Amino acid sequence: MSTTTVSVDLGARSYPIRIGRGLLAKAGALGPWIAGDSVLIVTNETVGPLYLDRVRGAVGTGVHMLECILPDGERYKNLATLEQVFDAAVDGRCDRRTTVIALGGGVVGDMAGFAAAVYQRGVPFIQVPTTLLAQVDSSVGGKTGVNHPRGKNMIGAFHQPVAVVADTATLDTLDDRQLSAGLAEVIKYGLIADAAFFGWLEDNLPRILEREAAALAYAIEQSCRNKAAVVTADEYEQGHRALLNLGHTFGHAIETATGYDTWLHGEAIAAGMCMAARMSERLGWLGPADRTRVERIFSAARLPTQPPAIGAERMKELMAGDKKVRDGRVRLVLLDAIGSARLVADYPEQALDAELATAAAPTPA
Amino acid sequence: MSTTTVSVDLGARSYPIRIGRGLLAKAGALGPWIAGDSVLIVTNETVGPLYLDRVRGAVGTGVHMLECILPDGERYKNLATLEQVFDAAVDGRCDRRTTVIALGGGVVGDMAGFAAAVYQRGVPFIQVPTTLLAQVDSSVGGKTGVNHPRGKNMIGAFHQPVAVVADTATLDTLDDRQLSAGLAEVIKYGLIADAAFFGWLEDNLPRILEREAAALAYAIEQSCRNKAAVVTADEYEQGHRALLNLGHTFGHAIETATGYDTWLHGEAIAAGMCMAARMSERLGWLGPADRTRVERIFSAARLPTQPPAIGAERMKELMAGDKKVRDGRVRLVLLDAIGSARLVADYPEQALDAELATAAAPTPA
Repeated sequence: MSTTTVSVDLGARSYPIRIGRGLLAKAGALGPWIAGDSVLIVTNETVGPLYLDRVRGAVGTGVHMLECILPDGERYKNLATLEQVFDAAVDGRCDRRTTVIALGGGVVGDMAGFAAAVYQRGVPFIQVPTTLLAQVDSSVGGKTGVNHPRGKNMIGAFHQPVAVVADTATLDTLDDRQLSAGLAEVIKYGLIADAAFFGWLEDNLPRILEREAAALAYAIEQSCRNKAAVVTADEYEQGHRALLNLGHTFGHAIETATGYDTWLHGEAIAAGMCMAARMSERLGWLGPADRTRVERIFSAARLPTQPPAIGAERMKELMAGDKKVRDGRVRLVLLDAIGSARLVADYPEQALDAELATAAAPTPA
Repeated sequence: MSTTTVSVDLGARSYPIRIGRGLLAKAGALGPWIAGDSVLIVTNETVGPLYLDRVRGAVGTGVHMLECILPDGERYKNLATLEQVFDAAVDGRCDRRTTVIALGGGVVGDMAGFAAAVYQRGVPFIQVPTTLLAQVDSSVGGKTGVNHPRGKNMIGAFHQPVAVVADTATLDTLDDRQLSAGLAEVIKYGLIADAAFFGWLEDNLPRILEREAAALAYAIEQSCRNKAAVVTADEYEQGHRALLNLGHTFGHAIETATGYDTWLHGEAIAAGMCMAARMSERLGWLGPADRTRVERIFSAARLPTQPPAIGAERMKELMAGDKKVRDGRVRLVLLDAIGSARLVADYPEQALDAELATAAAPTPA
């Protein structure tokens, strides 16, 4: 079994990301990061039956174990579902040294992480991501939270895990659609900061889609290295970290408009990144050849390059609620090359309008 | 108008506590701490009608103002009420630079502060405390949160305000019962760390109860200095800060048992501090004369020295849910002198049982 460790260097809040096949199969593997004598494992009804036993073994003996099993789906990522975690923690007498373990994809990680951030004003937590998206993105960096009915991730906290343990064997049970959704975030790292990785992805996408172990492992490791570097430089998103939101302002609007259920997050941001690429082309920042490469790689990853028919007006309204809005102005992450992104507030409004008009026109009834 | 400023020194999170009569009457007085171009004033239906106009004036012109008026009372300090704040923030398009203003007592401050801690993963907030308890304690130090039906302040965050503005003129509308409740926290500072202040309080309590301005101002200032010193030394309650919880483990159990409505927080912790003093006497740490001084000052402040009839078993069960529990053991703050407190885990269980037995026996039906 080959294991890689990527470090997230944040002083007292530093932690390792362990990546490898079969990590959870080792008894007591999570032990080094459990401080007290109890854990609360938070998972969902899809992932729980598949991996709870393995995680119990990885926690090891002599530790009191509680479990909280949530419904599966982004539409349950809200305060009401979060109360189930608080109820389990209070009823199970969890104290400030109880370690929360998030076992699942991005939704479980965001919710369990947020519960850990605010239960008794903060307890430690371990991320055990079981989807590609969670392994390459959401489990790393400490962003936690839930959705508001009118805005994605509107309520949350920065709360770093004490460790991320990504067992690539858990991807065996991931369906193709979820694998593709995770690839959206993988491709994103290439687009915003790593042209060489983008080139590698163009060449190796078929191997990843066929789940070739070495290709998957390399993609996860490179993604985590990119993410760790950004998070280390800008933990609280005062600047640079916002670039990780390429395609997300468009994507969150798509998710909110479609009720968090029809489109997967990865699908929504894939369409969003294509919108950002086309808008960058309109501004003359990105050549048509590069814009085509962007659309082509998402298509090859079996991801959408166009948003659903929401309507330009509605898209714009939803984008105005984005967290990157400052003093009323929607800031966007755009591309000035493959491998180079910028957060901009002073784009011409008509460039945005033009993209929204062509991309988001509702089909005539 | 004489104004005092006490500084809370926390590096990048440092902030001033401004104490004075009439501070809010000055137009634009809050302006220096408003970073963006919008504020969300959170208050309740009792305080709002009295002071919203004054606070609007203190915010000044050119700032977009939103308001959120919550129901009044500790029993509304929960996640459901918090959603009203999130709804107001999302509907009002509050962004990461919107400043939340908490106008009210401890409940409003805790809830508005927690909303500010987690809305879009954290926005700035200003505390404008209008009760004695909030001015001397809860508005200072960054503890925010809400109650769980089975545990006080179980869900929350450390989130420091950018300023605390304590206008002592707002105490004019405070009823006597609330004034006494605030005095419980004032007396606490004397008990845990400031014997000289305790002595001053013994001598000057009648002046405070008669609301003599100079005596009140001195009590508030000394309390804030004590609180600021503790918070500066231990922002995240890794050790020393826990001493501020003298009487609170008993007190929170009383509040939870009585449904957060019958007993005011200050009343519950007054009884709790007397229980801690009696338990300290049982352990031989505090002489009977000092124990009597403790009970006497709370009586003089028109506060209870005994808990209600909850029953020893129920008290113990509720105390086991306290946030200071570590690995199953209830840690208590006890006194080894007036002006000196200690957090202890290794007290003999029978000393606790004895105090609970005499103090918390239900009246035979």
